[in-house]
Amino acid sequence: MPATWLDIPADHPFGIAALPYGVFSTAAHPGARLGVAIGEMILDLAAVAELLAPSLAPAVAGPSLDALLAAGPRVWSQVRSSVTAWLTDDTHRDQVGAHLVPARDAVMQLPFTVADYVDFYASEQHATNLGRMFRPGQDPLTPNWKHLPIGYHGRAGTVVSSGTGIVRPRGQRRGADGEITFGPSQRLDIEAELGFVVGTGSPLGRSVGLTDFDEHVFGVCLVNDWSARDIQAWEYVPLGPFLGKSFATSVSPWILPLAALDAARVAPPERTVPLLPYLDDAATPPWGLDVRLEVRLNGHVVSRPRFEGMYWTGAQMLAHMTANGASLRTGDLYASGTISGERADQRGSLIELSWGGAEPLSLPDGTTRTFLSDGDEVVITATAPGPGGTVIGLGEVRGRILPSG
Amino acid sequence: MPATWLDIPADHPFGIAALPYGVFSTAAHPGARLGVAIGEMILDLAAVAELLAPSLAPAVAGPSLDALLAAGPRVWSQVRSSVTAWLTDDTHRDQVGAHLVPARDAVMQLPFTVADYVDFYASEQHATNLGRMFRPGQDPLTPNWKHLPIGYHGRAGTVVSSGTGIVRPRGQRRGADGEITFGPSQRLDIEAELGFVVGTGSPLGRSVGLTDFDEHVFGVCLVNDWSARDIQAWEYVPLGPFLGKSFATSVSPWILPLAALDAARVAPPERTVPLLPYLDDAATPPWGLDVRLEVRLNGHVVSRPRFEGMYWTGAQMLAHMTANGASLRTGDLYASGTISGERADQRGSLIELSWGGAEPLSLPDGTTRTFLSDGDEVVITATAPGPGGTVIGLGEVRGRILPSG
Repeated sequence: MPATWLDIPADHPFGIAALPYGVFSTAAHPGARLGVAIGEMILDLAAVAELLAPSLAPAVAGPSLDALLAAGPRVWSQVRSSVTAWLTDDTHRDQVGAHLVPARDAVMQLPFTVADYVDFYASEQHATNLGRMFRPGQDPLTPNWKHLPIGYHGRAGTVVSSGTGIVRPRGQRRGADGEITFGPSQRLDIEAELGFVVGTGSPLGRSVGLTDFDEHVFGVCLVNDWSARDIQAWEYVPLGPFLGKSFATSVSPWILPLAALDAARVAPPERTVPLLPYLDDAATPPWGLDVRLEVRLNGHVVSRPRFEGMYWTGAQMLAHMTANGASLRTGDLYASGTISGERADQRGSLIELSWGGAEPLSLPDGTTRTFLSDGDEVVITATAPGPGGTVIGLGEVRGRILPSG
Repeated sequence: MPATWLDIPADHPFGIAALPYGVFSTAAHPGARLGVAIGEMILDLAAVAELLAPSLAPAVAGPSLDALLAAGPRVWSQVRSSVTAWLTDDTHRDQVGAHLVPARDAVMQLPFTVADYVDFYASEQHATNLGRMFRPGQDPLTPNWKHLPIGYHGRAGTVVSSGTGIVRPRGQRRGADGEITFGPSQRLDIEAELGFVVGTGSPLGRSVGLTDFDEHVFGVCLVNDWSARDIQAWEYVPLGPFLGKSFATSVSPWILPLAALDAARVAPPERTVPLLPYLDDAATPPWGLDVRLEVRLNGHVVSRPRFEGMYWTGAQMLAHMTANGASLRTGDLYASGTISGERADQRGSLIELSWGGAEPLSLPDGTTRTFLSDGDEVVITATAPGPGGTVIGLGEVRGRILPSG
């Protein structure tokens, strides 16, 4: 990896090997525009492209990532190579340096227009834990679980940018006494997930195979799929989660391109049930990812989930999602489902961490939590191995609970 | 109702009391533009608005209904009044007549940009029938069914215009012998539904009450929610339908505004379980709708479902969908779920009409059907009572099954 001429600590999560994309504005220049994170600075991508790579300017000129997503893998590669060159070749220092903005001065926006939003359920440990709690006395994993990555569509219109306040949802729930009431959720939860952002679409009637994953998926982000467990438990049979999820889903502002995750690719867990050919990845390059998350509640780390343990990869999710001929659109977002590991401190939701509320978490401030209180702030961060022993950051997704209005 | 100066039979479904909106193009003028159906003609709305009502022109100028949907109920009312005046006041005959296009010369398009797509499950008879088939031995209605309108999010990106060929989806299914296989669906079905089109959005964190339904919903269309029952049966526990539905959903080209349905409003069925206040419509003007559907398979009527029997109204669906604070966007589409009545010939899906395949339908051509064969064409039409004993049409949604590619 070439070195950058910027003065950045070697262990900075937004070093030269990361280069995630986002959309920002500043007080001095309030228009939304594309940026690339580098250290504590943001490169104003459109401004530099106009100067140094006019042919790439149309793909990065917009107020969102939409045009870049749609431009496809050849352009993605050209833009990343160009940005790497600008930030490592000392001859560009003056021209490029004039278009670096301190990240602390920037307001980050939702980085792309979300087309369809799909949420998977790809962690065996999470599905097992929830099966035990939601369907006691039955097999925790449903019979289909190891044959296909289970997923469902969520509400694209309520995907919000990191930092957006999360109003505690109201809804119907059934009490332990069987009474049906309506009011603010009493079991408001998080789900720590990895999101995959589709760049290149696909036509109706055509499937996308496992090996075409990186032709279509641009990159990854962090997702907090807020969940109201009391609403969800009452509504979800037989057609799945609806209002227990649709009130808000937060995404991180920085989209890390797949190209930055080369060193993080690992073999997925051993499959214990034979897979149909369209999902069988035994002979394809692996798309397991060694992404390590940290979940903080009011500043205190409550969990360290690891994506590498996920049973289903992003490539399998995409192959399954399109196996029926469903088309893809630029801006489709699909998330992994809660990332939970074998250990109790690797669980990616409070319902698992507190075992349905039975085992409250103790926080350093002396308080305890089963589910979220008004005012609580949740921050999910993640890193992955980069080239040459470096560490690459995915940034953070942040949200604070506001009381019901 | 004033009479139109056009020569239209009194019983024409697109008479002066209907005036649905769509998007069309012609060979002579290939640009997509807004039209209003009147008899066998289409009024070129933007062209006439520019001449006769320039203040309304921006709302109807686009290549889709999106701007009109977003303009809100005051503009919807102004446009409808204006169109009525143009088509009834004889002094406009020459100016308006020059902008009438024969419907047979027009190609109809998807009329608006679908934001989020939600599908409900609002027919007690349909839910009961499917419960009996999918969950034999259990109560056919789940405990929540009469407390809330069950719904789930579908795939907005695969909502297609009427006439689009429907490629038979492939997918995983479990055979009677327990074997898991992948291939073209062998139980491809229809669902005859009514769709509600959201015009005015609502902010995140705010619910939309029952009586605000017509402030937000612009109108209705017909929906055929194609369903692969074998794929659905295997995948849908625990997170609901996914690939069994996401390959295609067809919508009719004409959106009938709510204002045209005044004479069709009826009381919904008696509620047999007390409702929470946000869903209790006992004291509000009724939003049951006397919409009568016909489902044709290869030209033969196989069912005559009636919307008036639906347990949940469109107003209740909207109130529920937003009860948790989920925002609405212009272009959100939500459908009723399959419309099925008490009688066997009022069932809106083949799985009900053939009782899971056990009782094949006989067609006049001597063939029988349980589920759809390649080449089959399904056409769903509907009418509703209009003012003064007239009948108002909703047009049709049409689709033909193409073999798996």
